[in-house]
Amino acid sequence: MALKDIRIVLVRPMYGGNLGSVCRAMKNMGLSKLVLVSPQDTMDMDEARMMAVNAGDILERARTVHTLEDAVGDCGAVAGTSNRGGVYRLHAEAPRDWAPGFLERSGHTPTAVLFGCEDNGLSNEELAVCNLLVRIPCSPRYPSLNLAQAVMVCCYELFLAGGHYFPPQEKHPEAPTELRERMYVMWDEMLSTIGFYDDQKAEHMMMAMRRIFS
Amino acid sequence: MALKDIRIVLVRPMYGGNLGSVCRAMKNMGLSKLVLVSPQDTMDMDEARMMAVNAGDILERARTVHTLEDAVGDCGAVAGTSNRGGVYRLHAEAPRDWAPGFLERSGHTPTAVLFGCEDNGLSNEELAVCNLLVRIPCSPRYPSLNLAQAVMVCCYELFLAGGHYFPPQEKHPEAPTELRERMYVMWDEMLSTIGFYDDQKAEHMMMAMRRIFS
Repeated sequence: MALKDIRIVLVRPMYGGNLGSVCRAMKNMGLSKLVLVSPQDTMDMDEARMMAVNAGDILERARTVHTLEDAVGDCGAVAGTSNRGGVYRLHAEAPRDWAPGFLERSGHTPTAVLFGCEDNGLSNEELAVCNLLVRIPCSPRYPSLNLAQAVMVCCYELFLAGGHYFPPQEKHPEAPTELRERMYVMWDEMLSTIGFYDDQKAEHMMMAMRRIFS
Repeated sequence: MALKDIRIVLVRPMYGGNLGSVCRAMKNMGLSKLVLVSPQDTMDMDEARMMAVNAGDILERARTVHTLEDAVGDCGAVAGTSNRGGVYRLHAEAPRDWAPGFLERSGHTPTAVLFGCEDNGLSNEELAVCNLLVRIPCSPRYPSLNLAQAVMVCCYELFLAGGHYFPPQEKHPEAPTELRERMYVMWDEMLSTIGFYDDQKAEHMMMAMRRIFS
C-alpha cells in the first residue's frame, strides 16, 4: 500500500495546460504514475511542460496507450470519477469516504483512478469498467470542476488518507509557572520604569496582561 | 455563517489563467467574493475569462484594491496561506482543522483568506496581518502548489465544513425477504429453462447466486 502505486489515468485528455497541472498536483501529493489514453489532437505539449513546472519528470514518464483496457487491464480496484448524476452513478462515494479503502487496496495489485475528457467526462461504457465510483461534492450552481482540480482533490484525499497530515502543531511545551511569574515580575518593573502605568493602575493592568497571555 | 460571506483575497497575482481558475474553483465550492490586491502587469484578462468558464460572474464582480489594508481592514478573522516553514509559521493549521472554526466565524464580521503571489507567496509583513495561518499538507519533494489549486483545497474544505457533503448513498430500501425469494424462484426456473445448468447442479448454483446478491 503506497501512494506511488496508484495510477492516475486521463481518458482522451484535450488540453496541455490541464495535463501539466495534473502532473504538478500529483507530485504535490506524492503520486507519480500517469497514463494517458488516446490524448486528443488539441494537446499542446509545450503548454503541458510549462504548467508542470517542477513535475516535468512525471510528464516525461507518463505512458500513452490506445485503449482503456491497455491502461487498466492489470488493475484490481479501478475508480471512475464523475460529477454527473443518473441511475448509473447512484453508488458514488465522496473522495473522503473513498480514499482510505482505495489506498489500502493499492500495492497488492495495481489500482487506477480514471478521469474523463474535459468536455464530457467518462462515458457510461468507460464507467462500466470501474468497480468504484467517486463524486466530488460541489455546488449545484456550478458542478463542473476543471480536470486538474478534480485530480487535485482526489490526490489530496489520498495523501491525507496515507497519514500525511500534520496535526495542529504544539512544538513548544507550555512554560512552567515559575518562568511565567518571573516574566510578569520583569514586565511589571519595566512598565513601571518606562512610565507605561502609574502604581495605582499597576495591579489592574497586570491582571489584564495575565489574562491575555494565559 | 455562510460560504458566500468569505472573501478570497489574491495578493499581487500574476497570471490570468490562475485568476480564472480561482474563480471557477470558488464557484464550484459555493464561494463568490473575490478581491485582488495590486494585480501585476503580467495579468492577462482574456486568459482569465477563458479559464473562468462559467464563473465569469465572479471575475466581473471581483474588487481590485491597492493595499492589503483596503482588502481586509474590516475583517475579523483573516487567514493567510503559506507552504513555507520557519518560526513565523509554526502555528499553521491544516485546512481540515481550520475550516470548521473559520466558517463559524464568518458572517458575524467579514472574513478573508489570503493567497500570495505565484512567485513568493505571502511575505512576512503580509502574514503579520493575519490572525490565522493555513498550511496545506503536501509532499516534501514538491511542496509548491499552483495558486488555483491551493485556493481549491481551501474552498473544498470550507464547502465540506459547511455540511455540503453527501454521505454514501443508500437511496433504495433493502428488498424484503418475500420479494428476494420470489426473484430466486424466477431465476431458478429461467436458468433451468435456458439450460444454464442441469438440475443436479441447480441447488449449488443457486446458493452461490444467493451469496453474491446478499
